[in-house]
Amino acid sequence: MAHGPDEYDMDMRPRPDPSPWLPFESRRRARDEKREAVLRAAVALFLEQGYHRATLNEVAERLNITKPALYNYFRSKDEILFECWAMGQERVDDFISSIDGEGGTGLVKLRKLVRAYAEVMATDFGASMVRFDVRDLSEKNSEVVRAGKRSIDHTFRRYITEGISDGSIKPCDAKLSAFAIAGSLNWIGHWYRPDGPLPPTTISEEFAVRLTEGLAHRPPSRKARR
Amino acid sequence: MAHGPDEYDMDMRPRPDPSPWLPFESRRRARDEKREAVLRAAVALFLEQGYHRATLNEVAERLNITKPALYNYFRSKDEILFECWAMGQERVDDFISSIDGEGGTGLVKLRKLVRAYAEVMATDFGASMVRFDVRDLSEKNSEVVRAGKRSIDHTFRRYITEGISDGSIKPCDAKLSAFAIAGSLNWIGHWYRPDGPLPPTTISEEFAVRLTEGLAHRPPSRKARR
Repeated sequence: MAHGPDEYDMDMRPRPDPSPWLPFESRRRARDEKREAVLRAAVALFLEQGYHRATLNEVAERLNITKPALYNYFRSKDEILFECWAMGQERVDDFISSIDGEGGTGLVKLRKLVRAYAEVMATDFGASMVRFDVRDLSEKNSEVVRAGKRSIDHTFRRYITEGISDGSIKPCDAKLSAFAIAGSLNWIGHWYRPDGPLPPTTISEEFAVRLTEGLAHRPPSRKARR
Repeated sequence: MAHGPDEYDMDMRPRPDPSPWLPFESRRRARDEKREAVLRAAVALFLEQGYHRATLNEVAERLNITKPALYNYFRSKDEILFECWAMGQERVDDFISSIDGEGGTGLVKLRKLVRAYAEVMATDFGASMVRFDVRDLSEKNSEVVRAGKRSIDHTFRRYITEGISDGSIKPCDAKLSAFAIAGSLNWIGHWYRPDGPLPPTTISEEFAVRLTEGLAHRPPSRKARR
C-alpha cells in the first residue's frame, strides 16, 4: 500500500535511504502515532471530565498543539469519541479471533474471553466502550458501535452455547448468563483506577475463574481458584 | 384520611371535616404526586434520549404543562436528575434496612440484596442510578450520590464479609466479589427493556442464585437453581 507525502509534516532533507517506500511508510507511521496520541489525550480527558464537559481546546492544550491542528486528524469531537471506542473494540475483536483460532471447549474459550476483556476494560480505550453514550455519535457511527456491542454479546453467548453442547458448561440461559458476565466485566470500566491496589492481571485472573465457576460442569480446584 | 381542597383542583363545597390540618396534608400529597409525575416523565425522557439531549420543554409537553410550571417543583434540570437518582437510592436503602432487620447469614442477606437490587435496576429510577453521569449534578448533590453509591458497595462487601465469618461464604476478596456482583446488577439498568422477554422477577431470581453460587460454601441444589 503506497502512501504519498504527508502535507502536515513535510521533511525536505535529502533521504539517507534510496527506497521511495520507507519514508512514506515512516511518514504514515508518524501520522498514525500522532493520531493515536490525539485519541489517548482525548479519551483520558473525556473519562476525567465527561464527554460533554471536555473541550477539544483542552485536548489540544495537553498535546501542545492548537485546536485547528486536531482537525488534521479528525473532523469532529464525536468522530474522536467514535475512534476511541474503535480502539477498544479492535482489541476485543483481535482477542476473539485468536480465541476462535485456538479452539478448545466452550468453557475454555469463555474463560479466555473473560480474561482478555477484563484487561481491555482496565485501559482507557476499553473504558470508553462503556462509559460514553452511543447517542453522542453520528447516526452512522452509533450503528457501527451498536453492531460491535451486539457482536461481543453474541460471542459470549456463542461460547456458553458451545460449552453447553460440549458438556463443559451446565445447561443455563445463555443470554442471561452472558449478560451477567458482561455486566461484571463492563463495570471494571467504571471502577478501575490505574493507581488503585489491584493490577489488571489480578482482576482478570480472578474474574476468569469467579465469573465462570458457577457455569462450569466441574468447578476448578481450590488451588486453581487462588 | 379525608381529602381537602387542592390549589390545582379547588373544591369550594363546604368541608365535611372541620380540621384545618387534613387539607394541608392532602395538598402536600397532591403536590408530591405531581412532583413524582414530573420525575417519572423526566427519567423516562432522560433514559430515552440521554440527559444532555433531553429538554425540560419536552418533559413539560409530555405532562401537558408549561416549562415554567415545572419550576414549581424543581429549580433546575440537574435537580430533577438528582431527584430521579434519589428515588432509586431510597428504594435500595429501604431494602437494605429490611434485610438488616431480618437477620440471617451473610449469604442469605447477600441473596436478598441481589434479588431486591436487580428488581430496582429494572425500573426507570433504578436505571437512572447507573445510566447518568454524576458530574452533571451540582457539586453538593454529586457528593450525596457518590456517598450513596459507596454505601451500597459497602453493604455488598459487608454481607460478603459477614458470610465469610459465619461460614456461609467461602473465603474470597470481598471487594472484588462485591464489584463482580454489583457489575452484573448495574448492567441490568443498561440492557433491561420492559417490553423484552424477561420479566424482572425471572432476572432477579436467576441472578440471586447465579451471582452467589460461586461464593456459597454449599452450592444450592439443582432444584433451587431452576
